[in-house]
Amino acid sequence: MPKAKTAPTLEDVAKLAGVSTATVSRCLNSPSLVVQATRDRVQSAVDALGYTPNFAARVMAARRSHTIGAIIPTMENAIFARGLQAFQEELRQHGYTLLVSSSAYQPEIEEEQIRNLVARGADGLLLIGHDRDSRIYDYLAKRRIPVLIAWSFQADAPVPSVGFDNRAAMAELANQVIKLGHRTLGMISGVSTGNDRARLRIEGVQEAMRRNNIPNDRLTIVETPYEIENGAEAFSRLMSRQDRPTAVLCGNDVLAIGASRRAKEMGLRVPQDVSVTGFDDIELAQITDPGLTTVHVPHREMGRRAALELVGLIEKPTESCNVQLRTNLVERQSLGRPG
Amino acid sequence: MPKAKTAPTLEDVAKLAGVSTATVSRCLNSPSLVVQATRDRVQSAVDALGYTPNFAARVMAARRSHTIGAIIPTMENAIFARGLQAFQEELRQHGYTLLVSSSAYQPEIEEEQIRNLVARGADGLLLIGHDRDSRIYDYLAKRRIPVLIAWSFQADAPVPSVGFDNRAAMAELANQVIKLGHRTLGMISGVSTGNDRARLRIEGVQEAMRRNNIPNDRLTIVETPYEIENGAEAFSRLMSRQDRPTAVLCGNDVLAIGASRRAKEMGLRVPQDVSVTGFDDIELAQITDPGLTTVHVPHREMGRRAALELVGLIEKPTESCNVQLRTNLVERQSLGRPG
Repeated sequence: MPKAKTAPTLEDVAKLAGVSTATVSRCLNSPSLVVQATRDRVQSAVDALGYTPNFAARVMAARRSHTIGAIIPTMENAIFARGLQAFQEELRQHGYTLLVSSSAYQPEIEEEQIRNLVARGADGLLLIGHDRDSRIYDYLAKRRIPVLIAWSFQADAPVPSVGFDNRAAMAELANQVIKLGHRTLGMISGVSTGNDRARLRIEGVQEAMRRNNIPNDRLTIVETPYEIENGAEAFSRLMSRQDRPTAVLCGNDVLAIGASRRAKEMGLRVPQDVSVTGFDDIELAQITDPGLTTVHVPHREMGRRAALELVGLIEKPTESCNVQLRTNLVERQSLGRPG
Repeated sequence: MPKAKTAPTLEDVAKLAGVSTATVSRCLNSPSLVVQATRDRVQSAVDALGYTPNFAARVMAARRSHTIGAIIPTMENAIFARGLQAFQEELRQHGYTLLVSSSAYQPEIEEEQIRNLVARGADGLLLIGHDRDSRIYDYLAKRRIPVLIAWSFQADAPVPSVGFDNRAAMAELANQVIKLGHRTLGMISGVSTGNDRARLRIEGVQEAMRRNNIPNDRLTIVETPYEIENGAEAFSRLMSRQDRPTAVLCGNDVLAIGASRRAKEMGLRVPQDVSVTGFDDIELAQITDPGLTTVHVPHREMGRRAALELVGLIEKPTESCNVQLRTNLVERQSLGRPG
């Protein structure tokens, strides 16, 4: 008995037109975004196969702009670049376009940009970290705009997140520093107000000290914005103290690069005279000399997963998600035993 | 005689409300972007002073979204990051918000993103480089969307630009390389198809050779996407040639970092055994060891000027602009005399 003829699918149209299913989806839902020649090719395939998209799905999709907004704290220093690139690539596979804004780490600019992206018709938003006024989440909930947090995982937070445990990741690194014999520590942190990643990384260092019975006053913390030059300045301040730290843990690789450079300028050898560690494992960490011991954050994987989850929140609003990713310690040359 | 009382200005409102003029402008033109508390404060000041915005200006402004779109080839490697950050900061001073897309150096993705930003109501667009299908410029002209090109200055191009002369900048660097005695050159270039910056930098090297009577066949060019790893691979290919170049000019700093790293891995000293140069002067150029001799591009100035000019094109469409910025050679340690 011959198999019953089934209705043509989106995949059939894509195959016949010689384009991706994402392109077919864009042609049907947001034709103005697609070049005329491609539109014609897809239309011919639709006509030839007699393809009829599922009606309910069509109505839902027609209300969408297929545009996702992401607001990152900064475009500089490539901290968010790799993750965002992967986020965009994965979104594209699903027929979505990405628009990015940068808030310069300022809550009032972030709020303005959230309102602007909603006004411009974004279907969903990606935000970095959990710390922000609850009024913003109310605003987005009222407008039914799905929002996903990245770069920070919190199982009990009111909004879903794809991220990692900043506290545990930093505690693991600090534990390794202490295991090598360091007892007087310095920390160059990002500004922790309104930045849960920075705050949790400080807590991670403190947790490791507690676990190893090192009194709290053996740690000196300097907070400064994430810029290479600020890392250098903060390092000078730490080194001018009577009880110089033998290891300086930095809130991210950018600050650590600044600290290492200043050490060199001061005639201090890393790690023989002072150890320096980073966080993130951006490309700089590998290129700088000595190579930076740091926490590897799976940026590409985080971006890709965030895209999948956010598309899920938009297209299947009843499902919820929370994805915790693992980080791992990368040991290069900048961390050694105290001299 | 007492001075005639003049009508209250935008500045007066800003002063009384204790906010910037940009914020007042946003409150009047795009109130949904402003937090309620600020809106209330501005409205009180407007009422107290009896401020009436110029009617014609109001009508024009009301049609605007106060959103600018920028499409850059990549968010990775921080090539465009610094310029874009300055672009955004200056736009904000004028009450505009920035949305950024990345095209992954693919013309069809760029076209899709242009259409999306227009569909989302962008008042104007910033694009990188001049090379693209004229159909796109027709599309934008028909919709009266002002467009400005950055990173590449061309006085005779159909659209205005804020940029620099990529050919002359690279010719100056190549001339310096030749002056030091190098006669067999290698070049690691970005992919030149659809990228006028890459193409013009190749032409710059060729021009310097011609000027110094060095035959064309003394230059070997490898084209590859702008990634550190690709720079390393291309360097290996150049070094495996019978007539090894004594100097390798790279299309940007990212490729040069890759080349330098591979030189180190091959046991070659830079610059004693082989010279390596970059282009852009991103932060990496200074941090890498040895420091990279490169062309300094005034990224912040370019971003700031681009914002001023694009706002001008939107608010005073009769005026046209073309801004050429100067680059300059930065001599660090990676370029020396042939060994």
